[in-house]
Amino acid sequence: MTAPASPAGSSSAWLDALRGRFVVFDGPDGSGKTTQFRRFSAHVQAAGLDVCEVREPGGTEVGEQIRTVLLDPHNKEDLDVRCEMLLFMASRAQLISQRIGPAIAGGQLVLADRFISSTLAYQGAAGGLPTEEILAVGRIAVGKHWPNLVVIFDVDEKTTTQRLAGSPKGARYAPPAGESLFADRIERKGAAFHRTVREGYLAQAKGDPEHYLVIDARSDADTVFATLLRELEKRLAASTSKQPSKPTSK
Amino acid sequence: MTAPASPAGSSSAWLDALRGRFVVFDGPDGSGKTTQFRRFSAHVQAAGLDVCEVREPGGTEVGEQIRTVLLDPHNKEDLDVRCEMLLFMASRAQLISQRIGPAIAGGQLVLADRFISSTLAYQGAAGGLPTEEILAVGRIAVGKHWPNLVVIFDVDEKTTTQRLAGSPKGARYAPPAGESLFADRIERKGAAFHRTVREGYLAQAKGDPEHYLVIDARSDADTVFATLLRELEKRLAASTSKQPSKPTSK
Repeated sequence: MTAPASPAGSSSAWLDALRGRFVVFDGPDGSGKTTQFRRFSAHVQAAGLDVCEVREPGGTEVGEQIRTVLLDPHNKEDLDVRCEMLLFMASRAQLISQRIGPAIAGGQLVLADRFISSTLAYQGAAGGLPTEEILAVGRIAVGKHWPNLVVIFDVDEKTTTQRLAGSPKGARYAPPAGESLFADRIERKGAAFHRTVREGYLAQAKGDPEHYLVIDARSDADTVFATLLRELEKRLAASTSKQPSKPTSK
Repeated sequence: MTAPASPAGSSSAWLDALRGRFVVFDGPDGSGKTTQFRRFSAHVQAAGLDVCEVREPGGTEVGEQIRTVLLDPHNKEDLDVRCEMLLFMASRAQLISQRIGPAIAGGQLVLADRFISSTLAYQGAAGGLPTEEILAVGRIAVGKHWPNLVVIFDVDEKTTTQRLAGSPKGARYAPPAGESLFADRIERKGAAFHRTVREGYLAQAKGDPEHYLVIDARSDADTVFATLLRELEKRLAASTSKQPSKPTSK
């Protein structure tokens, strides 16, 4: 679990495999995914990769306006789960058109903090929307730019609750600005909600092992980052001889 | 063309057939649909019908926020057509959940100024989105509450341009607040755009004559209203012995 991260210089083959690809970092609130996202992005940029970072919802001017509607606490009471899902998808369609599509075409690595996997976990598994409804809308919103890889940072509900509550043990995981916007949700809804979200992520990964990679995110940030690099390198080394992966659910 | 409108008292049978139903008024910008909408709503309310009026986009608090994003002239430049379509659908899902569903359940007549038919005409026929993509998302946003009847107010591009420009002949059609928000679109895009939108509406009606009713809206408002009442009465008299219509495209 504590193998040191490969120095950037020694890993050019798998870094090359990331050019023009689309990788999503996702996981329950408090999983530390945003911390890992920033660290990974800095790591691959230091190694010479051109990275396009996007976050959801938001990432474009229109998307930020949609984000405001979604996160307005005043709306939370009334917001229908289908409306919520469609707003996330609208923001996503704009992100694809304005940033992700051009970045992939330009050979950048696109790194997204949350994507359709979040909708499947939150509005799907936890919110009760059927997976098929979400995927049907997702195929239209995203078109051909389905992620090549979705990395899920997996934590149990006890760890995530401690981290979000800012306990001494979890202090280093104090959620960054993006993540804290979601923090009220889990605090309000509690451990059962987290469990359902977590199961939603794990079910996706189980159903599509080719496009998902689950990282055990219970340990400290250094250990999780080392695991991430090791597992990614393994996965990418195995896929470099293959064709770019295609959306499986198109 | 100029038959007088039936007095409200003599038409109770077809009015009864409107209870618990969902009727959409739609048509190109400048078709006068909003004027007819208000007139018709007042007419059936005077005859004792309980009416729930909704407008699109908007009609709920969340929907009005989405409307602001959609109509912000600053966004128009960048707005991806799929994002635009998904925003309309999000507003629609909220409207269904918060207002249309409960109103139908309570036996009200739901009258909508624009609905999916607008998306099919503007983002579909004129914007280039495939009909099937719009219907696939629409089925999820709307669920079982597909309109029982969509009334299309049909005008040629010359008439509509005159009306929107506020020419003397068209002065009585000065677009109400809701419609004027869209007026810049046709002024910017011109007659060819209007023609495509109009063809989009007519193609829908041709493809589903059971759920669409096309009203010639080139004449003055009194004549159009008389035609509307006569045609509606005919259509509803023919359908009163049938089961409530079901979504054809579910």
